[in-house]
Amino acid sequence: MNNLLEKYAEVAVNVGVNIQPGQELIINAPIEAVDLVRKVVDSAYKSGASNVVVFYEDDYTSLSRYKNVKEEYLTSQVNWLIDGITEGYRNNAARLVILGRNPTLLKDINPEIISKVARARGMATKELSNLITSSHSQWSIISYATEVWASQVFPNLPVEDAVKELWKGIFSSCRIDTPDPIQNWSDHNKKLHSWCDMMNEKRYHHLRYKSNKTDIIIGLADGHIWEAGSSKAKNGVEFNANIPTEEIYTTPHRMNVNGIIHATKPLLYRGNMIDGIIATFKDGKVIDVKTNDPKSTKILEDMLSEDEGASRIGEVALVPNSSPISKSGILYHETLFDENASCHLAFGQSYSTCMTQIDGETEEEYLARGANSSNIHVDWMVGDETLDIFGFDGTKEEQIFKNGEWAI
Amino acid sequence: MNNLLEKYAEVAVNVGVNIQPGQELIINAPIEAVDLVRKVVDSAYKSGASNVVVFYEDDYTSLSRYKNVKEEYLTSQVNWLIDGITEGYRNNAARLVILGRNPTLLKDINPEIISKVARARGMATKELSNLITSSHSQWSIISYATEVWASQVFPNLPVEDAVKELWKGIFSSCRIDTPDPIQNWSDHNKKLHSWCDMMNEKRYHHLRYKSNKTDIIIGLADGHIWEAGSSKAKNGVEFNANIPTEEIYTTPHRMNVNGIIHATKPLLYRGNMIDGIIATFKDGKVIDVKTNDPKSTKILEDMLSEDEGASRIGEVALVPNSSPISKSGILYHETLFDENASCHLAFGQSYSTCMTQIDGETEEEYLARGANSSNIHVDWMVGDETLDIFGFDGTKEEQIFKNGEWAI
Repeated sequence: MNNLLEKYAEVAVNVGVNIQPGQELIINAPIEAVDLVRKVVDSAYKSGASNVVVFYEDDYTSLSRYKNVKEEYLTSQVNWLIDGITEGYRNNAARLVILGRNPTLLKDINPEIISKVARARGMATKELSNLITSSHSQWSIISYATEVWASQVFPNLPVEDAVKELWKGIFSSCRIDTPDPIQNWSDHNKKLHSWCDMMNEKRYHHLRYKSNKTDIIIGLADGHIWEAGSSKAKNGVEFNANIPTEEIYTTPHRMNVNGIIHATKPLLYRGNMIDGIIATFKDGKVIDVKTNDPKSTKILEDMLSEDEGASRIGEVALVPNSSPISKSGILYHETLFDENASCHLAFGQSYSTCMTQIDGETEEEYLARGANSSNIHVDWMVGDETLDIFGFDGTKEEQIFKNGEWAI
Repeated sequence: MNNLLEKYAEVAVNVGVNIQPGQELIINAPIEAVDLVRKVVDSAYKSGASNVVVFYEDDYTSLSRYKNVKEEYLTSQVNWLIDGITEGYRNNAARLVILGRNPTLLKDINPEIISKVARARGMATKELSNLITSSHSQWSIISYATEVWASQVFPNLPVEDAVKELWKGIFSSCRIDTPDPIQNWSDHNKKLHSWCDMMNEKRYHHLRYKSNKTDIIIGLADGHIWEAGSSKAKNGVEFNANIPTEEIYTTPHRMNVNGIIHATKPLLYRGNMIDGIIATFKDGKVIDVKTNDPKSTKILEDMLSEDEGASRIGEVALVPNSSPISKSGILYHETLFDENASCHLAFGQSYSTCMTQIDGETEEEYLARGANSSNIHVDWMVGDETLDIFGFDGTKEEQIFKNGEWAI
């Protein structure tokens, strides 16, 4: 376990953020992850990091603020800290996020309060978020098997066994239990890049998704770029934003999505498990949404009305139904894993790295090409073993996915 | 224990920093102190804090940097974080420091390296330190009984018992085990303030320390102010900088200290236990220093040559030999406690709160009145049951302390 944790830390540092000599590393981690953080810090300094700054996050104190802060300060932000971190990233600090917090932490907090706080935070961190989503410098997300998370993934196991099983799942899906994880990631990146290259050559105008329930056309943005696995940050350094990753993804056209689509897995949103989503799109916008129960529908509707871009999609991603994470059958309750088990879409913000950049282009022109802008980015799963996907290149349609697998 | 910890948190929040509605609180804490931090955070939000930011410190990663960082980055600083925190304090954030880190963490690191790093840090945090030492806003220091600290205080006890004993000592000396700790602190502050008022009326020109070994004249700065217990920050809010505190202290004259003085307890400096200090002063400057062994003498000499002010004193403090911490007989290996067991001096930086402020005064004029300036502030103990202290008001000398106790 200790040895695997060390290899995991090395993958995070050298494959994930790929830290460069003299670079700063900023880590966000749950306080439970201290043993992993220590190994990451060792590895980062050995790899030449000048400074490692660790921001520990504690579910208890996050919840305490919701419960105990006076109402008038609820949306107040720590601007000097946000500005400081923004400056750090602007000056080329790399970012490592370690997930593992309680996915249902906020389940008893009024969703309107959560939205209000998130919106205030979103507005205050706009530049910070832009630096990250535009990959100004390298960033990566890994995870840590905390007890609270493991218990939700394996509710029928004693907590100790649940943690062990979750680690097994993490190490396996992150390729840590292979003889040479760093080489394995290099091979894996090559394979993902070859799918991307093919899709980027196709220049499809739109995709059509068809299964026994879903029937929808998803336009692709003008100048969309398929991305997968490692990519290059603006500072020229290659990095893997997600560990694990099995998807290839790009920017759909925010104005050109028409039809009906069924979610194939539950969506966990701010502590709520939303099952049975059926969404109807017209001209890119969700015009009707259903779920298995009225409370969930309300939460989803609130999410979609967060801002103008929240009811449009900003990401379309392809994942074969036979991906290792899908085959494991584990529902991780964590997008970082679950999105790699299924084709998916995301409501909200698109990735600027998935769009060609045009010098001097205005925000308006950029959105007119189909990119989307929102304070949210929420992935939801739409793939299963019945899904067929077709690509239309302007003259003809060809099949890309058949029964949930690559068919091209 | 849980109940005492909660009371301790309340004392930290309401007596220590005395948090005000809408104010931010910045906490620095060892990662082991998470249970105390949680109670502090609860209490701070309930008392009206707008945001609490916790910076967890981890001995392991601090040491990792010394061991693993490439030499060329050794003195590099995280300027965006220092600037951010400085901005936070400038904007009135309160500060709570929780001690408990391993006092001998750096014992195997080359002292020259430690000095180099500390000097670079000191230069980078000059404004930040000034905001704190000038009490721009409220700040407080408390402590946490970590295993590593407890084991050094009680080396002969099993670690679990050592932690229990250390907590007992902390709760007792911090007045937490009293029926109403907040009222108790209020009474204690009144008593300390009455000593201060008396000493401030005296306007002594200098003090003379005399014991069987010590014979020294310690001038007091022109415009010195005796401080003790709670004081007022520049924002007008009363706070207790140290919990516990038994001392009354002021600014000596940096140019007017003459004679010989013996330390009465060991000094723990950067992980080194320095025993048997004998210092000879001439015109405020240490001109000769001895300890029990040559290695310690070298470390002390290096410390004194850190900068011009390091070999002069910036604080003189009076503590009766019968103080509860002195009577407990415990050597805490931690200045916050040990300085309250004995009359002491500090090499280095003086407190601007212990000097009258003169509008438009230059730094030069301020130092000419006797205040001291340095990157260090290192307390060392000089009181024992044989110490007599006399005050000279310009015409006559009167006895203040006799056999280590107040005599006036």
